[in-house]
Amino acid sequence: MLGPNDVAALISPETEWFSLPGPLTLDSGATLKEGALAYRTWGNLAPDGRNAVLVCHALTGSADADAWWPGLIGEGLALDPAEDFIVCSNVLGSCYGSSGPLAKRPGGEQAYSGDFPRLTIRDIVRAQRQLIDALGIRELRLVIGPSLGGMQTLEWAASYPDLVSAIAPIGVSGRHSAWCIATSEAQRQAIYADPNWQGGHYTPEQAPENGLAAARMMAMVSYRSWSNFETRFGRALQTDSDGGVFQVQSYLAHQGRRINERFDAVSYVRLTESMDTHDIARGRGEYPSVLADLTMPALVVSVPSDVLYPPREQQLLAAHLPNALLVELDSEHGHDGFLIATETLSEEIRHWRASLSTPSAATG
Amino acid sequence: MLGPNDVAALISPETEWFSLPGPLTLDSGATLKEGALAYRTWGNLAPDGRNAVLVCHALTGSADADAWWPGLIGEGLALDPAEDFIVCSNVLGSCYGSSGPLAKRPGGEQAYSGDFPRLTIRDIVRAQRQLIDALGIRELRLVIGPSLGGMQTLEWAASYPDLVSAIAPIGVSGRHSAWCIATSEAQRQAIYADPNWQGGHYTPEQAPENGLAAARMMAMVSYRSWSNFETRFGRALQTDSDGGVFQVQSYLAHQGRRINERFDAVSYVRLTESMDTHDIARGRGEYPSVLADLTMPALVVSVPSDVLYPPREQQLLAAHLPNALLVELDSEHGHDGFLIATETLSEEIRHWRASLSTPSAATG
Repeated sequence: MLGPNDVAALISPETEWFSLPGPLTLDSGATLKEGALAYRTWGNLAPDGRNAVLVCHALTGSADADAWWPGLIGEGLALDPAEDFIVCSNVLGSCYGSSGPLAKRPGGEQAYSGDFPRLTIRDIVRAQRQLIDALGIRELRLVIGPSLGGMQTLEWAASYPDLVSAIAPIGVSGRHSAWCIATSEAQRQAIYADPNWQGGHYTPEQAPENGLAAARMMAMVSYRSWSNFETRFGRALQTDSDGGVFQVQSYLAHQGRRINERFDAVSYVRLTESMDTHDIARGRGEYPSVLADLTMPALVVSVPSDVLYPPREQQLLAAHLPNALLVELDSEHGHDGFLIATETLSEEIRHWRASLSTPSAATG
Repeated sequence: MLGPNDVAALISPETEWFSLPGPLTLDSGATLKEGALAYRTWGNLAPDGRNAVLVCHALTGSADADAWWPGLIGEGLALDPAEDFIVCSNVLGSCYGSSGPLAKRPGGEQAYSGDFPRLTIRDIVRAQRQLIDALGIRELRLVIGPSLGGMQTLEWAASYPDLVSAIAPIGVSGRHSAWCIATSEAQRQAIYADPNWQGGHYTPEQAPENGLAAARMMAMVSYRSWSNFETRFGRALQTDSDGGVFQVQSYLAHQGRRINERFDAVSYVRLTESMDTHDIARGRGEYPSVLADLTMPALVVSVPSDVLYPPREQQLLAAHLPNALLVELDSEHGHDGFLIATETLSEEIRHWRASLSTPSAATG
């Protein structure tokens, strides 16, 4: 499994680091005495600081948005470095460079591991805000993200409406459903069932690899769809000689190995816990009427085949956000459709962004 | 966890046992030297042996069909002991009385445990056939079952068409999808991740309880639906004192404990493996055109909110079975809808059965 020294190999050499200027008090009451965010940028910040776009990543993503979301960032694409100053930061609690379970405790050599505190989506966004300020950004003309990234997107709009001019939450709800909490909980229980878990206090040499692998397998099923698996695997066997191992089993085994090469089990637990806290209405009013306060233009993207965050969730968002456009991504791939149908997605975002600069939309 | 001596407490005292008359050669080539099936009956067999109904149970079900399917069996219900001789047998490989991992090896005191052979749905049905013959049944006027029970139902029709006059497969496909195989595989991997698994060679005192619990949690999510969980749990907390445990987490923990009190991990693995083998076309032709050979009347029941065996699977069945009626069960509960919306289900079955005795249907 991934150790603290392996992270560097997993993130791009262009990664930059931002140190939080002071302690960060979390919603739980715990305080991170110090912390850092890993981030990437593309393009240049305009002199007035108003051309920034913040890209928020999903559960096992990183600041390398060009790697995990190819087809969205580039010339003529949804996010164009010739026009936009694009920022993507690794979330607090992750293991791709930002402060998280693999980071060393302040003043010590030991990693936090299982002692890294629980986070809320708001904690994650609060830390990001400090980076945005430090970069001299005075306006986020777009905050965009899928899944966990969509939760951050909505929290940005609710927490800092004066800074955020438009949002594009993708494959997400305004508050995490019991269905999603349950899916994550079953995955965490698979991790806890691994004797190497040890409450999160393990070494890279003796990490809960089997548990994390099983959790990831479950997750991959929930990210895809019946059609995606049927088309890709059907009932095909991987080999004829081993008594009948289906291709889809081999695929899952690969996913299980792969997650252990690139992700940390405590980060996995902490970030799924933070997703469980996602509730745009908490302390702000009733859901969904509270969405009426998010008045900026919003492109809400739905994948009809998404079983994890089903379309009804995005339909509810679009019905209650006062300035929303709902787009259904024509994809049979399930939740992960936002990573697969990127050409269509980029076009939809581009058109919508163009519409925002017309006079009628600007007054919306 | 469940031990060999605990089974008696889990099945009804009315349970009867049938010993297979000889060795059973399995599709894998392995042979069970001896075996027994636990079964229940309701009503009386007619003198001509032609009023029998076979009820086939789902993954963790038992011969106690009146317990797991209340509302289906009784006076004026879909299956009426005044008219029908109703039989339900526990499947081979289960732990509710039939030969399975908890059963003693022939001539020994040791249980099979992890050495119990892999089974196919056809093996399960082949053993059942011997029970049906031994009971003096000359016609099964209906074979009915949900999920794993639906697989048996279809196999009965394909293997013994001369014996089966009508079928009602519920919440099932004609061949197990990659999606379902993947769901089961992730669950098995959670069991294997438990160090107590030991290839299935564990004692009741040191059983893979955490792994089986995690597997069951995943399964429960897949058996229900977004709506079911949202209505039942939403984001309600179980207590305010423990820092935020959601009710749905507590529910899953309960399900995890409960499965360990009533089911064996090797049985769980073997029966999910048998479901993976389900393919009505194997050795018989192409799917779905092979369904044309199943000419008896068929009531295909679909639950629109079923994410595990989605409606398109039953639509395909109904489109290719020559004498099929497709019924959509109006339930928001997901796959388990067949266990919940039993009143509607019973009515649908009753109407359909009545229609079969009219002259026009009889020639269908």
